[in-house]
Amino acid sequence: MALQAYLKEKREMVNRALDACLPEEEGPASRLVSAMRYSLFAGGKRLRPILCMAGAEAVGGDPALVLPAACALEFIHTYSLIHDDLPVMDDDDLRRGKPTSHKVFGDALALLAGDGLLTEAFSLLSSPRLSERVAPQLVLRVIGLISGAAGHRGMVAGQAVDIQFEGKPADAALLEFLHTHKTGALITAAVVSGAMLAGADAARVRAMTEYGRKIGLAFQISDDILDIEGDTATLGKKTGADEEKKKITYPSLMGLDRSGEIRSRLVTEAVNALKSFDHRADPLREIARYIVERKK
Amino acid sequence: MALQAYLKEKREMVNRALDACLPEEEGPASRLVSAMRYSLFAGGKRLRPILCMAGAEAVGGDPALVLPAACALEFIHTYSLIHDDLPVMDDDDLRRGKPTSHKVFGDALALLAGDGLLTEAFSLLSSPRLSERVAPQLVLRVIGLISGAAGHRGMVAGQAVDIQFEGKPADAALLEFLHTHKTGALITAAVVSGAMLAGADAARVRAMTEYGRKIGLAFQISDDILDIEGDTATLGKKTGADEEKKKITYPSLMGLDRSGEIRSRLVTEAVNALKSFDHRADPLREIARYIVERKK
Repeated sequence: MALQAYLKEKREMVNRALDACLPEEEGPASRLVSAMRYSLFAGGKRLRPILCMAGAEAVGGDPALVLPAACALEFIHTYSLIHDDLPVMDDDDLRRGKPTSHKVFGDALALLAGDGLLTEAFSLLSSPRLSERVAPQLVLRVIGLISGAAGHRGMVAGQAVDIQFEGKPADAALLEFLHTHKTGALITAAVVSGAMLAGADAARVRAMTEYGRKIGLAFQISDDILDIEGDTATLGKKTGADEEKKKITYPSLMGLDRSGEIRSRLVTEAVNALKSFDHRADPLREIARYIVERKK
Repeated sequence: MALQAYLKEKREMVNRALDACLPEEEGPASRLVSAMRYSLFAGGKRLRPILCMAGAEAVGGDPALVLPAACALEFIHTYSLIHDDLPVMDDDDLRRGKPTSHKVFGDALALLAGDGLLTEAFSLLSSPRLSERVAPQLVLRVIGLISGAAGHRGMVAGQAVDIQFEGKPADAALLEFLHTHKTGALITAAVVSGAMLAGADAARVRAMTEYGRKIGLAFQISDDILDIEGDTATLGKKTGADEEKKKITYPSLMGLDRSGEIRSRLVTEAVNALKSFDHRADPLREIARYIVERKK
């Protein structure tokens, strides 16, 4: 299959849906909405929404059905980037080749734009657009899954540990906690929520969870490797930042070669997790392989 | 009825439920959870959870039924205070007589504690504890109501306008936008969500919405007045801060006397909105009157 064409088609679907979710507004809060849209349309890869739709397709579902959830995942991912880039966190000026939110809108409005995006994700998830076509009880389970993955038992825990342990000695267990929480949790929730909303049974949900965990960790290892081997122009953000900030990463703890090996093994295991699925899971298989090859 | 006894009983119910919602944790994220708990148990009045339970009672419902929603509202309120107190926002050192979150845990962890509380609110709302006893479709409507009231069409919009217009000329329309969004939206959602979860029909939901809007605005006017007339020891936060920061307030725009009159009128209108309700709405009526008398 042609992965690039698949990704492009899905990315365009997501972009259209995101645009419709959050139109520009008039009135006193117009600048807040502009700030939310600025980061939402700053050139993201849309990996999480695409995984959500591919998860639905893999179990025979309609990707359009899960679009509200796919958009909600991108809202949550975008909020996490805005807050992560703030001066009190990673203090990054550049993201995807553009000035970060607080450089354009100031720290306070960037903070609030993140808060707004996170909150609106749950408006999207609870909207009738989803529950008119999926059993409300199932939608509630997906809200529980996504909020659990995004919050203090998931992504937010990863970010807290990332900040707290900067420059401190770390072991492999802490590194794995960090990566599975900071990046892996939401990536796993993306693919699993898509499958669940499309009616996956318990065995398929387990397989998707396994797949998501493996590619989530592989994805973060790629991020760490690209921070060393990539270049600023291609990535659209400064490289070498992890070393400068003494972040805990796979390369810093295991070396580059060993990190590459772990990543390859994870991708193989992710593909193996899908062995009971037919050709409709090919996009998920290709996405897993793409994670090793990606340059940004 | 004895309002103080009612408030105390409900506050204790809420405190027990909050404690069970968010137990201390071991492991790398323990400090994050401690930060979340620090602000959650920093002596809040629990107004929003109590309004949620009183809303349920007013339509003949069981207040214990709506406890997960009541707790979620307090999580959202607490997150908003943590973010509001951050140096990039209002830069407050004291809240309810205690050092604010970022003074104790640092700016980054305070930011993340807020993010964690906001996210966890939606885990509480989507948990089986609520949907086992209330129709899932109704729970989804309440999630939509609360996220709408908390986000960029509600509270977050109010906070954005509060920051953006500091020190700038304001008119009555902007002042009302600010107050109805910053404080009124979540207070209204609190009482309405309680009534909805307890099965209120459309007419009663409309009446509760009217009641909530009136007391929400009255409550914020009281806050503005107390910032001038109250004292730091009773309030547990610095008074005179609004004037120092050139905040848009009712007293600054209308004067103290006129602000007091508007507040009294709003309370009367709030009580009138409940005229079709029987004695089970007495707590709501008393709470409306208490808003005028409160000293903190």
